[in-house]
Amino acid sequence: MQMAERLSRLGTETAFAVSGEARAFAEAGNKVYPFHLGDINLKTPQNIIDAATRAMNDGKTGYCPNHGIPQLRQALAEEINATRGADYALENVAIQPGGKPTIGKLILTLINPGDEVLYPSPGFPIYESQIEFSGAKAVPYTFHEGETNFILDTVEIEKLITPRTRMIIYNDLQNPTAAESSEDEMGHIAELARRHDLYVLSDEAYFDVRFEGKSRSIVSFPGMLERTVILYTFSKKYAMTGWRLGGTIGPKEIIEVIATLNVNDESCTNHFIQYAGVEALQGDQSGAARILETLRERRDAAADILSSIQGFRCFHPHASFYLFPNATEALKNIGMDYEEFRKTALHETGVSFCTRQHFGRSLPHETEKYLRFAYSGIDVEDIKEGLGKLKAFVEG
Amino acid sequence: MQMAERLSRLGTETAFAVSGEARAFAEAGNKVYPFHLGDINLKTPQNIIDAATRAMNDGKTGYCPNHGIPQLRQALAEEINATRGADYALENVAIQPGGKPTIGKLILTLINPGDEVLYPSPGFPIYESQIEFSGAKAVPYTFHEGETNFILDTVEIEKLITPRTRMIIYNDLQNPTAAESSEDEMGHIAELARRHDLYVLSDEAYFDVRFEGKSRSIVSFPGMLERTVILYTFSKKYAMTGWRLGGTIGPKEIIEVIATLNVNDESCTNHFIQYAGVEALQGDQSGAARILETLRERRDAAADILSSIQGFRCFHPHASFYLFPNATEALKNIGMDYEEFRKTALHETGVSFCTRQHFGRSLPHETEKYLRFAYSGIDVEDIKEGLGKLKAFVEG
Repeated sequence: MQMAERLSRLGTETAFAVSGEARAFAEAGNKVYPFHLGDINLKTPQNIIDAATRAMNDGKTGYCPNHGIPQLRQALAEEINATRGADYALENVAIQPGGKPTIGKLILTLINPGDEVLYPSPGFPIYESQIEFSGAKAVPYTFHEGETNFILDTVEIEKLITPRTRMIIYNDLQNPTAAESSEDEMGHIAELARRHDLYVLSDEAYFDVRFEGKSRSIVSFPGMLERTVILYTFSKKYAMTGWRLGGTIGPKEIIEVIATLNVNDESCTNHFIQYAGVEALQGDQSGAARILETLRERRDAAADILSSIQGFRCFHPHASFYLFPNATEALKNIGMDYEEFRKTALHETGVSFCTRQHFGRSLPHETEKYLRFAYSGIDVEDIKEGLGKLKAFVEG
Repeated sequence: MQMAERLSRLGTETAFAVSGEARAFAEAGNKVYPFHLGDINLKTPQNIIDAATRAMNDGKTGYCPNHGIPQLRQALAEEINATRGADYALENVAIQPGGKPTIGKLILTLINPGDEVLYPSPGFPIYESQIEFSGAKAVPYTFHEGETNFILDTVEIEKLITPRTRMIIYNDLQNPTAAESSEDEMGHIAELARRHDLYVLSDEAYFDVRFEGKSRSIVSFPGMLERTVILYTFSKKYAMTGWRLGGTIGPKEIIEVIATLNVNDESCTNHFIQYAGVEALQGDQSGAARILETLRERRDAAADILSSIQGFRCFHPHASFYLFPNATEALKNIGMDYEEFRKTALHETGVSFCTRQHFGRSLPHETEKYLRFAYSGIDVEDIKEGLGKLKAFVEG
């Protein structure tokens, strides 16, 4: 069977293979401690579920506009304005079936084959896949270990910019590192974008999953409103990963193209769940607060144990639901590389996790070894039990 | 703002502009008779709504597999086998957020830039848009008026095939013509595909919206299983247009690529509505039967009046919810072309409809003029009242 040539440039989320191995191990009768996937094992708040049920029973089961229902576009514009200091109207919002569709659709809207797009590596693997699938060149930039957090080197990033560079994908509070830019660092990224006339895809999936401090969007910096497109998702804050509801927020001309891509790709996002989105944004927030509190407890439990493991170095990040310990020393002591260590740990302890290798292509001269633990899908008790076993295995 | 060059090849559904005009006319205080959009003004059957509510409350709100939940993939394989005489398993099915996503994803999977794809014109406008957006060449084939139905000329179609032709999009019981292939005609299309080694995208959106006779799929012809991909949607039979739930059914190798595109584009289709899909296929069918009966009454009412209008010629099709009268004579009598006639009719009578121009590029030497009426979104009483006014206007 002869397939299209472009498929040779199509990537995927290789973390799904880790899920498959974990599932197989569990089906063989073993206990698995799932740290591999960023799904949330908490229920969507009941008021949101009830709003969807009401909308269905009210007959919101026919097509809706390809941009999304006006109520949700308006509510999302107001939410973004209130939290990001922006000045968006309904016309700046296109509703999507999830956060992810914004990545591919924005690349199709702005980037020509041969153009270059900067993206974080380690980072969400779909960036690299969608850039290359479009025929553009994916140019990775990386993070460095600071004192208490991963940091970006904007001098280094600027060296990657060429006349063909059109966009930088910026994902503060990111998966997998949980890296958080200081105001200075974010300001430098904004300055780079202005100086080199780059668009910014600001992936703000974890903007609201913050335990201390206050999130900030790059769109709030001077001159950034016209060159930034925000990826918003309902998935994390409201434990709505499986609902597939998100939005693209940005300049009207871009939103109009994105909405035309909606017509071509899926007509519109499910109609009645958009009313649930309005309830999520404007209704009772106690469910979201409880989700956040639970995640905070999990972070504390997981970060405490991981940072205590001999040969591990682990930050205590303020946001997202990921930990990205440096395990270079431990892997050296145990004499294993990424995949051997990951598989052996699963079979010896039941702890399932991803590694740096699941988050985009490695950069040249990368010497440190990192593991990625998601704590969104595992309760505190199992975090303690599982990571206790992992500690014993590594130190054993 | 400099956008990507590929956008010059991106089309849309121009029928949405007609909706906008109709809405504006209604908002100015006028009664509108909506025949322009193929949406359904009937409620989704309650057992399907209740299944979605149950699944939400059962916590089916996290991610599900990118291929879709196994229960729905299995149920859909069984449904297709039972109604199309095929032999599919769960592995042949990828769930999608609607019927439409199959079009773009399949083109990306099989077609290289410069390849040629045959598609029906008049036909669903997204075929043309997605073929050209991918960089391929869209080659239209057309229908002819037979005695009681629109027919295809396979000799004519074969002349369009070149060494670069890779696929034919075939949409029996189609929008806008409601054309229905005889067994012979479908067999000839299958033979063409086999002889020239073409893939077939079989758009079966209206397979179950049939009032007399029995639908047949091209996949049932010898040698077609390995070269056919079926577009299935829950939208029409179960009045679920706004749910965005459908499936791609075909050879496993193709389904695997489509599922990888799912990972890249939207991760998965909404989790809990997939349980509603299982209920739709396997639960009480009385809701679907009532929807079909209502549509049959509407077809009879609309076709009777349209075929009675002086200068109109209108078939009484067995399937879909569209009528496509030939209005060449009437437009000549009234001295108007498509757009003038459409807009004048809206403002004089409130009747809103589309024309042939909303369904793909016209072919050279096209002389006849067709209008398209959808009767899925308007009740019998309004059909009679509106089309009565249109008759008076045309004959006036």
